[in-house]
Amino acid sequence: MLWYEKAVKPLNLDVKKQAIARQTVLTKPLGSLGELEKIAIRMASRQGKLKPILDKAQITVFAGDHGIAEEGVSAFPQIVTTEMVKNFIAGGAAISVLAKQWEMAFEVVDVGIANPLKLAGLIQESVGLGTQNFMTKPAMTSEQCQQAMLVGKKVIARAKSKGVELFIGGEMGIANTTSATTLACKVLDEKVANLTGLGTGIDEKTLVKKNTVIEKSLARTSSDLTTIQILENYGGFEIAALTGAYIAAAQQGITILVDGFISSVAVLIAIKIQPEVKNWCEFSHQSSEKGHQNILKAINAKPIVNLNMRLGEASGAAVVLPLIQSACILHNNMATFEEASVSES
Amino acid sequence: MLWYEKAVKPLNLDVKKQAIARQTVLTKPLGSLGELEKIAIRMASRQGKLKPILDKAQITVFAGDHGIAEEGVSAFPQIVTTEMVKNFIAGGAAISVLAKQWEMAFEVVDVGIANPLKLAGLIQESVGLGTQNFMTKPAMTSEQCQQAMLVGKKVIARAKSKGVELFIGGEMGIANTTSATTLACKVLDEKVANLTGLGTGIDEKTLVKKNTVIEKSLARTSSDLTTIQILENYGGFEIAALTGAYIAAAQQGITILVDGFISSVAVLIAIKIQPEVKNWCEFSHQSSEKGHQNILKAINAKPIVNLNMRLGEASGAAVVLPLIQSACILHNNMATFEEASVSES
Repeated sequence: MLWYEKAVKPLNLDVKKQAIARQTVLTKPLGSLGELEKIAIRMASRQGKLKPILDKAQITVFAGDHGIAEEGVSAFPQIVTTEMVKNFIAGGAAISVLAKQWEMAFEVVDVGIANPLKLAGLIQESVGLGTQNFMTKPAMTSEQCQQAMLVGKKVIARAKSKGVELFIGGEMGIANTTSATTLACKVLDEKVANLTGLGTGIDEKTLVKKNTVIEKSLARTSSDLTTIQILENYGGFEIAALTGAYIAAAQQGITILVDGFISSVAVLIAIKIQPEVKNWCEFSHQSSEKGHQNILKAINAKPIVNLNMRLGEASGAAVVLPLIQSACILHNNMATFEEASVSES
Repeated sequence: MLWYEKAVKPLNLDVKKQAIARQTVLTKPLGSLGELEKIAIRMASRQGKLKPILDKAQITVFAGDHGIAEEGVSAFPQIVTTEMVKNFIAGGAAISVLAKQWEMAFEVVDVGIANPLKLAGLIQESVGLGTQNFMTKPAMTSEQCQQAMLVGKKVIARAKSKGVELFIGGEMGIANTTSATTLACKVLDEKVANLTGLGTGIDEKTLVKKNTVIEKSLARTSSDLTTIQILENYGGFEIAALTGAYIAAAQQGITILVDGFISSVAVLIAIKIQPEVKNWCEFSHQSSEKGHQNILKAINAKPIVNLNMRLGEASGAAVVLPLIQSACILHNNMATFEEASVSES
């Protein structure tokens, strides 16, 4: 049995019942905290603690490059992957700013950028200098795919040893919406038009080209690939690492806060491999990337907010973390009707 | 000229332009931070600072009782208003927990509860021992209404002197969704069925009764009342105080983070008195109280999140505060393409 086929940690259903009961006696009308009540109950049943703890959150951004970028599917040149990695470490990127503000552990992993760099603080786990152009050949070898997934597993093992309770995975890789869209089309057997979008900001003309590239790429393989074969054929190293990290987090009992489109595709793949991974996921936001809604629908996931974000990097998840914290804090620290001597209806 | 008719502080349109320009050079595709970009630009234009500051937020919960409660329109007995005031101060209520978590100044003002109490930390500004039953007579006198609005103004004057940049108003008052719904029906000339809802948790039978009470109350007055006369006839002391606070905040240049249904009705009234108050408002959340959506539509306001909350107390706004902070911090602290040497598209 492969490591990622091993069962994820089960939820604690006794604690879930207790958490549901606790919500009925806190000093508020039942249900009046809406989604926050549900989040707190899920957190409790995952941790097996009536009062779930959320002190340590970690963000890991995986960076990798994509051979498909040479087809001109992105608004940015490939060197931007490397430049943004520098920006992450220097503290100038959106996710760096958010990690600092909300006191989250933050790390950046090079899983395979095309123009690598030595940089204090950058974790070196490169699987190759970018993937192959998947329009004409598989993006990566089976070995590379396994290796990239293991990078994710390793990140989670380290997080677990530090006592991390919530994991946010992020990604950086020019052209990775093209990779993610192709993956999702193949996994869901869905039409390109239903899953494609403007990525981080291409124009309509480039979008037409992007769609053609995806159509051609999809036609290159048969319809009977396994999920892992789909990942090998169309994935990116950062997406494979995310998939590995998500499965490992669910195995280790760490809550996953999913970011946007790319991350959701990695979750989709993780769920295809092991459906129970979903029990460990909170879906932070509905991205303005068109395909995201359909991905979430396919896995029956409801995002917590919709802020029309479409940046990636884990930025949407980082923005939503305080809402998860509020949910836990309310559940843990509010007085009951009895404690506060408040009359019930 | 009455104090609440005096102009609100104008926005700084030069700084607005600069803030829009700044968003185009930060290291992200333009628009990829979605609503957060818009929030930051609004904050900048309000404060007249390219990098808006959000260090000091204040929550003030106004508590008052409603004569209409005797018609049996709430799921809770009137004494709960007083009991919850105790709970706010003791730290056991949702809003107390959130205020502590997110380090907001927090105060509770008695503007007119029916069963008053002396409590260290409770600000005494009572205008009366609850309003009159507005099904048969005006809820309050003109003097009481003016006095309650002044309580709000006073709160803001104190906040201003402390350097508060963002104000969250909350309310507590058994039966105040009935008051707010009646106010909104009269102000908007809208059908009861479009604005009424289950409040903090009444059953369908009580809802039918609530609607009848509102219909009868609306029929008691003519259709040519001024906004202030509507407030006198159907308001609560806490709603009048909120209205006063919102107008004063806009005059003093303090951003308003609006909570749910009741608060939005107070904003609606403030906007009817002075439309420019809206420039100073962020609308935190879409409440699950049915009428809220129509109130927001009437003032063309877009809520930031929808978490199906319906608690009041300012709880929805408090949960959303960190998103506003994220918006400002991203806008202020992200690197530009030039600073980070990242290639533009």
